[in-house]
Amino acid sequence: MNPTLEIFSQGEEVVTGQTVDTNAAWLSEQVVTMGFTVTRHTAVGDKLNDLIALLREISVRADCCICTGGLGPTSDDLTSDAVAKAFDLPLEFDNIAFEQIKRFFTLRNRTMPESNRKQAMFPKGAERIDNAWGTAPGFSLQAGRCWFAFVPGVPTEMRHLFLESIQPTLASRFVLRPNKLVTIKTLGIGESAIQQCIGAIEIPPQVQLGFRAGSDDVQTKLLFPHDYPEAAVNSLASKVAAELGDPVFAIDGLGQVGGDLVFTVDQLMTAGKHTLAVVETASQGLLAAKCIGLPWLLETRFEQSQQRLGQKLAIDVNADDLMASAQAIAAEIDKTGDADFVLVQLYAGDKQTFHDKDQAIILYNTLLTRDGFHQTTHSVVGPIKRKQNQAALLALDLLRRYLQHKEL
Amino acid sequence: MNPTLEIFSQGEEVVTGQTVDTNAAWLSEQVVTMGFTVTRHTAVGDKLNDLIALLREISVRADCCICTGGLGPTSDDLTSDAVAKAFDLPLEFDNIAFEQIKRFFTLRNRTMPESNRKQAMFPKGAERIDNAWGTAPGFSLQAGRCWFAFVPGVPTEMRHLFLESIQPTLASRFVLRPNKLVTIKTLGIGESAIQQCIGAIEIPPQVQLGFRAGSDDVQTKLLFPHDYPEAAVNSLASKVAAELGDPVFAIDGLGQVGGDLVFTVDQLMTAGKHTLAVVETASQGLLAAKCIGLPWLLETRFEQSQQRLGQKLAIDVNADDLMASAQAIAAEIDKTGDADFVLVQLYAGDKQTFHDKDQAIILYNTLLTRDGFHQTTHSVVGPIKRKQNQAALLALDLLRRYLQHKEL
Repeated sequence: MNPTLEIFSQGEEVVTGQTVDTNAAWLSEQVVTMGFTVTRHTAVGDKLNDLIALLREISVRADCCICTGGLGPTSDDLTSDAVAKAFDLPLEFDNIAFEQIKRFFTLRNRTMPESNRKQAMFPKGAERIDNAWGTAPGFSLQAGRCWFAFVPGVPTEMRHLFLESIQPTLASRFVLRPNKLVTIKTLGIGESAIQQCIGAIEIPPQVQLGFRAGSDDVQTKLLFPHDYPEAAVNSLASKVAAELGDPVFAIDGLGQVGGDLVFTVDQLMTAGKHTLAVVETASQGLLAAKCIGLPWLLETRFEQSQQRLGQKLAIDVNADDLMASAQAIAAEIDKTGDADFVLVQLYAGDKQTFHDKDQAIILYNTLLTRDGFHQTTHSVVGPIKRKQNQAALLALDLLRRYLQHKEL
Repeated sequence: MNPTLEIFSQGEEVVTGQTVDTNAAWLSEQVVTMGFTVTRHTAVGDKLNDLIALLREISVRADCCICTGGLGPTSDDLTSDAVAKAFDLPLEFDNIAFEQIKRFFTLRNRTMPESNRKQAMFPKGAERIDNAWGTAPGFSLQAGRCWFAFVPGVPTEMRHLFLESIQPTLASRFVLRPNKLVTIKTLGIGESAIQQCIGAIEIPPQVQLGFRAGSDDVQTKLLFPHDYPEAAVNSLASKVAAELGDPVFAIDGLGQVGGDLVFTVDQLMTAGKHTLAVVETASQGLLAAKCIGLPWLLETRFEQSQQRLGQKLAIDVNADDLMASAQAIAAEIDKTGDADFVLVQLYAGDKQTFHDKDQAIILYNTLLTRDGFHQTTHSVVGPIKRKQNQAALLALDLLRRYLQHKEL
C-alpha cells in the first residue's frame, strides 16, 4: 500500500473563489509521481477554529499532509497559531528564521516592518524550511499519524520549497514505490489526432494511457507499474513517440531532461552556437518574452500593422502572398543584421478576425538560414490570447524542427 | 450570520492533479456573491468509503453543499451509491430521467449503452435536476442540516445547471444577505508597507480588512456587512485609497470597473487618443505582449544588450548615467517615429545580476511626451521572470501615472 497524502490549502482567496487553487493540482502530480496515494484536497479560509479542526482531522487520517498558505506577516495568516493550538504546542521564536527575514528586507533596501516578526514563530518541535524565495519560511512537524509540511501559498515560493526541501525529505521518510510516468510532449497536433495516430499500438492492460491538452503543448502520458521492466518502458514509449513523429518536441521520464519548447530550442541553439533575429506580429512580443535571459535571441521587433512593418523596411507587404512577403522581410533583416537566423511571422486576418474567438487567423512563418528559407503555415482559432500564444510557440517550433532535422 | 456552504469535488483526476479544479473557484465566487459563507472545499477520489465519510461530515457541518462529479455512467462514478449508503436511502429508478438519457443518445443517432441506465437511479427523496447539456442529470436532497446539490463535473454542464436550476433554488431556500467587497489595487508598494501606510485609519470591527500580494498587483480588500451604509462604504474605501495615493491604479466594487493595470492604461490611452512606441530591455517583449490587440501600441523593440541598442540608434549608452541615455534614445525614436509618446526602459545590472534571484537590477524608465521627459527608477529583485514582469508593469505604470495626473 502506498502511503496516503492530503493537500491542505489555506486562504480566504481560495474558498471564496478569488484564486483557482493550482497549488493543489501541482503538488498532487508531484507526490503521485513519487508514489503517494493522494486521498483528499481541502481548502479552508482564514478562520482559526476551522484550521484547528481540519489539522486534527488530518493528523489521524493521513500519513502525510502538505499545507499551503497562511504563513504571511498579516493578521489573517494563522497557520502557526492554528498548529500550536491544534496539537497543544507553545510557539517559539526562531532566531535563524528571524535573521533570514531581516536579510530579505535588507537585500531590497527596505526596513522590516514589525509585523514580519511573527513569521519567525514556530510551534515547538517544528523543523524550519528555509525560504530563499520570499519572506516566509515554512516548517514541518509530525503530529499523530501524520507528517505535516507547511509552505507559503505563493506558487513560485511553494514550488521551490517543495522541490528543494520537501521532496528530498519525503523520499527519505517514506518507503515509496513510484509508478513510472513517461510524458510525450507535442505541438501542432490535437488530442483526437494523437489518439487516431497511435490507435494501432497495443497498450498492455497494466499500462495506463492518458492525454492532456494544455495551452503550451498536448501531452500523451504512459503510466507504468513500479516493477514494469525498464526495457519494456523504453520500447513502448519509443514506439508511441515514433508514431507521433515530428510534432514531438520533448519526452519526460525516459532519463532525458524534458522541459518545455523554449528549453528544447535553447538546448539546440546553444549547442549549435546560433543567433536569431525575430519579427513578431500575431505574438506581439510574446515570443521574445518566452526567451527571457537566453543570449542567442539578438533582437525582436513588433509593429502594430504589417503595412507599417513593410513601410519601415521599404518592402511591399502583399496580402495575397504573405509567404513571399515574409521571405522579403527576412532577407532585408538578414542583409542589415548580424544574426545567423532570421525568423519572420506574418498572418492573414483583420483586427476583427484576430479578436473573435470563433474565427481563425492563418500564420505564415519563415525561417531564413544559410540553407535558405524554411516555412510553415498554421490556422489558429480561439480567444486572442490563445492566438498570441500559439503564434509564439508555432514560430519557435519551426526553429526547433529545423534544428532537430539538421542535427539528425 | 450567512448560511455556510461547502464545495465538494469528486474525481481521481482532481486528487491526482491531472485536472485543476476550476469548478470549485467558479462556484465559490457565485455563491459568495449571493451571500453564502464558503467554509470549505474538499476533493476526494473515486473511493466509496471516502465519499460516504465526507458526505456524513458535511451533513452535520454545513447548511448547503454543492457537489461536482461522479455522475457518469462508468463504474468509478459512485455519487448516487455513496449518497444512498451515507444517509441510508434506497436507490430508486427515475423513469423521466431515463427517458431524457435515452433521448440524448437518440438525438445524436447513437445507441444508449446499458451502462447509462445507472444514471437514472437516485436516492429516495431526491429531486432530479434536469440536464439539457449532457447525459447525466443531477439531483438535490436535504440530509441532516445540509441541502445537497449534485451536478456533473464537466465545467460547461455544471455551469448551466448551477445558473439555471441551483441558483434560483438557493435564492428561494435561504435568507441571503450579500456582503459588499471593495478591492484597492496597487503597484510599486509591498503588503507590509501598505499595512503601515493605512495603520492610522480606524477600521470598524464589522469591516474585514485583507491583503493579497500577486505577481501583477498588491490588493487591499475591505469586506463590509450587507447592511453597511453605502456612504460609509464609499467614505472608508476612499480614505484608504487616498492614504495609499499614487500606487493605486484601480478600485473594484465602488461602482467603477476595476480591471488590471493594462485595462487602466488602455482606458486612459483610448480616452486621450494617444499612441505609443516602446523600447524594452529587461521586460524583453513582455510589455508589448501584455498589450495584445490594443491599437495604441504602435511598435516595440528589444535588443539583446543596451550596447547593441545604442549602436543601432547611434547613441552612446553611458552605464554611469542610464537616465540620460534613456532620454537620448527616447528623443531619437521620437525624431524618426510617429507615436505621441515614447517609453524607454533601461536597466543597470549585468547578465549575472539579472539571472540571480538575490541580486537587484535598477530600472530606469523614461517617458517622452509633448510636456517633456517623465521618469521613474525602481529596484527589482527576485527570479528572472519576476524581474521581467515587474519591468513590464513598472514601465506601463509610469505611463498610467502620467496620464492620471494629466487628467486630474
